[in-house]
Amino acid sequence: MKNIRKYLCVILAASMLLGLAGCTRDDGSNTSGGGSGNGSTSSSKAAKENILVEIFQSNYEGAIIDRIQQSYSDQTDAIIINPGAYAYYSYAIHDALISVPTPKVEVHIADITHRAEEWRRHSITAAACNKFIKGRGLDGYTDAI
Amino acid sequence: MKNIRKYLCVILAASMLLGLAGCTRDDGSNTSGGGSGNGSTSSSKAAKENILVEIFQSNYEGAIIDRIQQSYSDQTDAIIINPGAYAYYSYAIHDALISVPTPKVEVHIADITHRAEEWRRHSITAAACNKFIKGRGLDGYTDAI
Amino acid sequence: MKNIRKYLCVILAASMLLGLAGCTRDDGSNTSGGGSGNGSTSSSKAAKENILVEIFQSNYEGAIIDRIQQSYSDQTDAIIINPGAYAYYSYAIHDALISVPTPKVEVHIADITHRAEEWRRHSITAAACNKFIKGRGLDGYTDAI
Repeated sequence: MKNIRKYLCVILAASMLLGLAGCTRDDGSNTSGGGSGNGSTSSSKAAKENILVEIFQSNYEGAIIDRIQQSYSDQTDAIIINPGAYAYYSYAIHDALISVPTPKVEVHIADITHRAEEWRRHSITAAACNKFIKGRGLDGYTDAI
Repeated sequence: MKNIRKYLCVILAASMLLGLAGCTRDDGSNTSGGGSGNGSTSSSKAAKENILVEIFQSNYEGAIIDRIQQSYSDQTDAIIINPGAYAYYSYAIHDALISVPTPKVEVHIADITHRAEEWRRHSITAAACNKFIKGRGLDGYTDAI
Repeated sequence: MKNIRKYLCVILAASMLLGLAGCTRDDGSNTSGGGSGNGSTSSSKAAKENILVEIFQSNYEGAIIDRIQQSYSDQTDAIIINPGAYAYYSYAIHDALISVPTPKVEVHIADITHRAEEWRRHSITAAACNKFIKGRGLDGYTDAI
């Protein structure tokens, strides 16, 4: 179990619907539900590099904040987050992210800077992250790892 | 039980305080708490037209999103939503609404375009609905049905 | 037990991390976790003035709204609230606050009007409160009492 790094992947349900699955869970098993496509690519990459990825999914802003804050004390080495629509207004998630010192990457599947709605073009939570990956589809998650 | 249509009515607690009640619940019984006024009018209309209205009330944005997404798989024929103050900033509820294909009507009791506070005059969630009813008081719910 | 006033103190977790503790709880005991500094000052002041302070902490906007609405019927004499980042966008908390008639004080530890980020300089929830205390550090809570 030496040198295993622990990553936390925080996502909204919407991302789940797009088929993200197959990442290695905390218990070592794969997530149910397909695991085809980029999910399993992320998974393979994580396994190869001795990384344990825990996927946390919730539609509750408060649950996302709780989980981020918990990572402060549970030896999380990095946070990968796709806050979905919360990216556009949740200053509370922004503040939860800046309150923990672990490296953080925000991932958006689409290139939000080119979305039709103006409000989708700027993520306020990305300002609390060290890196921002967008427009790479589900590969964005692999890139983040 | 033939031809019964199932409608989901999603509201914030504030609307409950205004006395909305009396709609036919999922179990066929009426909601407790008065049922006077327009609530029972909606109820009568629903009963006459063979419509089963389930009322879902929560102050949790995440619970509202969960319930909307659940309607994707539970044969809901239409969604009537009064998102209260979430109408002014919840892009997450907006995105949950666009993710389900059922017809959606947003109802506001007041005519929000004439409210004193500027931020109350525009609903961002209404853009995700097929119809928008405002300023009709509790009759708005009957109109929606 | 005569003349005991009941105050409700609603805070986000972030405030807890800053060491706010030591206020008299509903059960009469002190909160765990230090209680040093201004927390205990608030506590002493509350005890001296026969005030029972209940501290309610949650990262869930919905839980904060539920708790504020509950104060309508549980003989709360005043609400002290530090909504943290929700101050910048939660119209739902704003509306919950205006829906209850008890006196309300919003407290921010920092002077938000001088924060670096522009979005931190204006609290929308403060408009629903009778008083607004900022930039007084944890003393703000004592002032509020």
